[in-house]
Amino acid sequence: MSVNTFGRLFRFTTWGESHGPAIGAVVDGCPPGLAIDESVIQPFLDARKPGQNKFTTQRKEPDQVRILSGVFEAPDGVQRTTGTPISLMIENVDQRSKDYSDVARAYRPGHADYAYDAKYGFRDYRGGGRSSARETASRVAAGAVARLVIPEVTIVAYVSEIGGDMIDPANFDVHEIGNNPFFCPDAAAAKRWEQIVDDARKAGSSVGAVVECYATGVPAGWGAPLYGKLDADLASAMMGINAVKGVEIGDGFGAARLSGEENADPMRPCANGPDGAPEFTANHAGGIAGGIATGQPVTCRVAFKPTSSILTPQPTVTRPNEKGEREATELFTKGRHDPCVGIRGVPVVEAMMALVLADHKLLHRGQCG
Amino acid sequence: MSVNTFGRLFRFTTWGESHGPAIGAVVDGCPPGLAIDESVIQPFLDARKPGQNKFTTQRKEPDQVRILSGVFEAPDGVQRTTGTPISLMIENVDQRSKDYSDVARAYRPGHADYAYDAKYGFRDYRGGGRSSARETASRVAAGAVARLVIPEVTIVAYVSEIGGDMIDPANFDVHEIGNNPFFCPDAAAAKRWEQIVDDARKAGSSVGAVVECYATGVPAGWGAPLYGKLDADLASAMMGINAVKGVEIGDGFGAARLSGEENADPMRPCANGPDGAPEFTANHAGGIAGGIATGQPVTCRVAFKPTSSILTPQPTVTRPNEKGEREATELFTKGRHDPCVGIRGVPVVEAMMALVLADHKLLHRGQCG
Amino acid sequence: MSVNTFGRLFRFTTWGESHGPAIGAVVDGCPPGLAIDESVIQPFLDARKPGQNKFTTQRKEPDQVRILSGVFEAPDGVQRTTGTPISLMIENVDQRSKDYSDVARAYRPGHADYAYDAKYGFRDYRGGGRSSARETASRVAAGAVARLVIPEVTIVAYVSEIGGDMIDPANFDVHEIGNNPFFCPDAAAAKRWEQIVDDARKAGSSVGAVVECYATGVPAGWGAPLYGKLDADLASAMMGINAVKGVEIGDGFGAARLSGEENADPMRPCANGPDGAPEFTANHAGGIAGGIATGQPVTCRVAFKPTSSILTPQPTVTRPNEKGEREATELFTKGRHDPCVGIRGVPVVEAMMALVLADHKLLHRGQCG
Amino acid sequence: MSVNTFGRLFRFTTWGESHGPAIGAVVDGCPPGLAIDESVIQPFLDARKPGQNKFTTQRKEPDQVRILSGVFEAPDGVQRTTGTPISLMIENVDQRSKDYSDVARAYRPGHADYAYDAKYGFRDYRGGGRSSARETASRVAAGAVARLVIPEVTIVAYVSEIGGDMIDPANFDVHEIGNNPFFCPDAAAAKRWEQIVDDARKAGSSVGAVVECYATGVPAGWGAPLYGKLDADLASAMMGINAVKGVEIGDGFGAARLSGEENADPMRPCANGPDGAPEFTANHAGGIAGGIATGQPVTCRVAFKPTSSILTPQPTVTRPNEKGEREATELFTKGRHDPCVGIRGVPVVEAMMALVLADHKLLHRGQCG
Repeated sequence: MSVNTFGRLFRFTTWGESHGPAIGAVVDGCPPGLAIDESVIQPFLDARKPGQNKFTTQRKEPDQVRILSGVFEAPDGVQRTTGTPISLMIENVDQRSKDYSDVARAYRPGHADYAYDAKYGFRDYRGGGRSSARETASRVAAGAVARLVIPEVTIVAYVSEIGGDMIDPANFDVHEIGNNPFFCPDAAAAKRWEQIVDDARKAGSSVGAVVECYATGVPAGWGAPLYGKLDADLASAMMGINAVKGVEIGDGFGAARLSGEENADPMRPCANGPDGAPEFTANHAGGIAGGIATGQPVTCRVAFKPTSSILTPQPTVTRPNEKGEREATELFTKGRHDPCVGIRGVPVVEAMMALVLADHKLLHRGQCG
Repeated sequence: MSVNTFGRLFRFTTWGESHGPAIGAVVDGCPPGLAIDESVIQPFLDARKPGQNKFTTQRKEPDQVRILSGVFEAPDGVQRTTGTPISLMIENVDQRSKDYSDVARAYRPGHADYAYDAKYGFRDYRGGGRSSARETASRVAAGAVARLVIPEVTIVAYVSEIGGDMIDPANFDVHEIGNNPFFCPDAAAAKRWEQIVDDARKAGSSVGAVVECYATGVPAGWGAPLYGKLDADLASAMMGINAVKGVEIGDGFGAARLSGEENADPMRPCANGPDGAPEFTANHAGGIAGGIATGQPVTCRVAFKPTSSILTPQPTVTRPNEKGEREATELFTKGRHDPCVGIRGVPVVEAMMALVLADHKLLHRGQCG
Repeated sequence: MSVNTFGRLFRFTTWGESHGPAIGAVVDGCPPGLAIDESVIQPFLDARKPGQNKFTTQRKEPDQVRILSGVFEAPDGVQRTTGTPISLMIENVDQRSKDYSDVARAYRPGHADYAYDAKYGFRDYRGGGRSSARETASRVAAGAVARLVIPEVTIVAYVSEIGGDMIDPANFDVHEIGNNPFFCPDAAAAKRWEQIVDDARKAGSSVGAVVECYATGVPAGWGAPLYGKLDADLASAMMGINAVKGVEIGDGFGAARLSGEENADPMRPCANGPDGAPEFTANHAGGIAGGIATGQPVTCRVAFKPTSSILTPQPTVTRPNEKGEREATELFTKGRHDPCVGIRGVPVVEAMMALVLADHKLLHRGQCG
Repeated sequence: MSVNTFGRLFRFTTWGESHGPAIGAVVDGCPPGLAIDESVIQPFLDARKPGQNKFTTQRKEPDQVRILSGVFEAPDGVQRTTGTPISLMIENVDQRSKDYSDVARAYRPGHADYAYDAKYGFRDYRGGGRSSARETASRVAAGAVARLVIPEVTIVAYVSEIGGDMIDPANFDVHEIGNNPFFCPDAAAAKRWEQIVDDARKAGSSVGAVVECYATGVPAGWGAPLYGKLDADLASAMMGINAVKGVEIGDGFGAARLSGEENADPMRPCANGPDGAPEFTANHAGGIAGGIATGQPVTCRVAFKPTSSILTPQPTVTRPNEKGEREATELFTKGRHDPCVGIRGVPVVEAMMALVLADHKLLHRGQCG
């Protein structure tokens, strides 16, 4: 089985392998009339782009997106979405010629190599093929389109923890996020992380990270009981990102340690609320109750494991030979890698948040508009 | 929008409100020929049933399931699934007549009351209506059918933490799980939890919990890149359970604090493995890589918030009057409630694990069988 | 595989066998706030109900529908849809005890008996089980809910041809449809059909029919390129009705014999059109172009084969014995049957039209509202 | 709404406009291990290609397909599908620069111009944009992949009627289909059609056609009750092709004129049948009963309307001006057009048959394998 489409009304389908000629996404279900051209999408790809500093992989990819369909000059002279599928393509440029015989022959521990072989019988082993984090560029491109659908929403993601070192909430400054290579909202933490990530890089090792994301402006009512819950869709969206192993909404696992009184999100009337909406005096729930948005900020936390590609050789096994026998061997990742894959996960988490919210906006409009 | 169906090939659709005449599920896509009658499903409902001890809600529901379709006596004289939809119905019996005027008038904080009103304009307020945890009985019934599809898999769930008090892994005894009212595999912890939960109950308060679940026997290859990942589907399934706020696969957030070396899951040849499958010497990944099962136990952790229904009055607001104005008020939950909703979440977590795995078994067979 | 759900946003799932305890449908995705109770649904079931005259099967089924969920008294005191799944149940009453040993042992030609056995290995043979036209009662019930979603649309279906004898368009009178047991808009034809159908009934034979359906009030814009076309969805909906073998939109096969000039649907400005919509001076297209409604009446024609249950014995084969061998035998249908199944197809065709249009209204609102 | 994906397990998503840079399809869910390269797909595109003789449009498109993902050299040295999405791209080459101001300003009668405008507010008017039959090239490419999934099935389509002139079944010769520009199995009819089509072409007019298609080798059991019926899926697939207005399975509308005895498909034991399958002595049902294949040839007939693009001016209206007013005008199609669009529909009908059958093979394997 292969399921490369996400979403219900606002859907995207991605395709492409790390070392094939190109990767891409087809965005279907986008409403018509939204002003769009490549320049609307490119900045988000640039934020995710590798090779921008020593803290990320040195693979150099321009990641130039092309829009191949679904847009046209509207009567007002502006290029807009037409309501038909938007085909986005990003050519793979830096496919460094390389000897792949070792990864062809054995499985990289911590990677999907063995699982793909077990499922499909063989795999495109070059750079991880379809399981490469390179695929997330397609998500970021699709997410940029999704943002056009939800202009009322502001999405912010950042790294809150690297290698176990957390930001200090007291230092949180949203403007700081773009000022350092870690998408870190705490300047002091960013300073510390330089050391942590550089140490990992020099040691050929890697570190994990936690990415946090919030969306403001989500109206109460988006979401859907019971198997289209906004939080369940977010959990699916985030857990599906490469290297993610945990997702929390609101207080997450912390809520399991609170009492009912501590965890309550009391309400009070609000003179200035939109349409007479009440005001909440706490947001343990992360802006979602019963799978439906409450009008508070939607918040989630996402755990990224350390990059599996490391320079230390790991015990592993070979593909079976003709007799079905495997041999013990060792493998390590040569060449370019990300010492902390969670960092470049920030634009991806934002994209997935946008994609889920755009879909739920349309779903809500469809049935309760 | 309303999405009450889960799954791709093995699908179930649930219906029903807490205080309506009945609740139920329609299971579609179940393969034919599986031996089934009510006695196969009932034990799982009994395990979830309320009112069995003082640690859960005193609502008394027999939760007797009826199979209304999709089964027939096979040529071998055994009643079996026919491959057509299996309609399961559970009548609501203990709909104690009660005064609902306060919850009709105002929103219970921490509940979905306000969100439903914001979405749909009004709601069935009796006992939470559709957002009641009562709906999980339908999932448990559907999950019992799913188990028939995956006889090769063993699923075990248990509570690992209540009110912040964790089990000691050294005390883990799978046989202990059924010996106490907490589904606790650590006898000593179960003893301590009696006090914790009883204290909460007496105080009209509530506590959160963490449920862990593992599935053994899942063959390498089940799962699907990239938007039908086994871990993403599990995250969606678990996050969609009432009161759940966090989901981890394998080491989850803990993985974010490991180095690449610590987090590696090395492999070695295994003489006795099925079909020459290799052996892993660690399972940080929780049995899933690239969204595909590796053949190791599939593991997840699920965080349940404390029950929102507590006796302490909470500030809240009324529904808008004719002029659209809301008033400040206070609300508390009268009557029967669960001091720790996570406990009764254990059979639900098991059911969702079974439902996801049954679906992925069929998907895998469909395309890679 | 078993796919018992239809629709994208407005979805229904049916369950139940001809001779099981009940049949039913779960309608999901219905917008909230629509006034509903059983009396809204029952008249449509009554129109489809068997045993009302000698021209249909003598099975007596009261076909009383019960609403088990998804409705609640709204603040205005009216029972309304809540936006949650609406569970509809119809108990099977007239399950006459009967000897089924012959249909258990061999396949009725023209029925789905052999196909079900080939697919599932065995089948509920009583009255056709799941493949019985009895299932269409669930569709009619669901269709009655769908009608609430599209009050702007008027749907009319009627029989235009029985046993090759056609109505005269010049005699078409919409008020006549309810005046005869054939849903025939031509009183003279209805008179002739009495003889045709009665002859078939007495001879233990059966005749085919053509049902025509049109929907007025469908706004231009409903529908969706390219694999959610309104005409493709109608074709699927109609072809999926028991005994249907052909579907036409607009001029259908007749269009294949026209020239481009003859088949054109010219337009002209219309002073009174809604929102300045133009007026068409022909409707060969049946109200759909490029899969999207044009604002003209949506028209289709549906061919029903003659009932396969006839009294004349037909050559057939037995189920394989233990050695896998089949024997030649003959089978005929004892007891009650419909001499012209197309007649009772009229309410079903209307229901499917309503279900498709309700879905497309919500889809359109979701993405182009 | 926009739905550009077809299928359940074997799915394809198409994108692209007639005069954009390219069109394409993403095929998802294709099983791994199938030998594939461009040369496997190209012949089917060549059969559909325009500009090959005077009986089709003179637009010259090389229609060269490129495979951008989802394939890799397997261990046996052969390029094979990997189980990941297969991205197929066809560049648009012959986008003759042309004055589109008239179609930008008014609607071509019989085309989707007005419907698209009504739905989306504006449209890519160049050559019909997304509604152009050019999109069917993507279907043909995807269909070529689908054929690899069902090597046991042979699919044959042909034109059986043009402008009301039918083939003589007595002259049917399958080898003749490739010998004339009409995919006509009757040499004498092909001769006659030269005149009919050429007359239409010279007159700037157009004629309709009927395409018939059969698939042999479809095993009994493929298909699915009740809303995934094989015949309903075929009806949807065929009705969704540009210009199609009618679909029949088996005897279709003809069955409505038969008696139950005439329409019966009797069975008898068959010594040489696969797995002891019985033999049918008639096939009025077109190989499908209850939505499930019976093992007989699956047959369908598809009605194509005459090409809407004709040289005779047709009354129509303009897009509304700033005041929302429309003007009466006339429009005719300048330049290249197909005098009989049904001819080039043959490879498309075959492709859709293959796509539906591939999907149902995987569905069947998934749940009843």
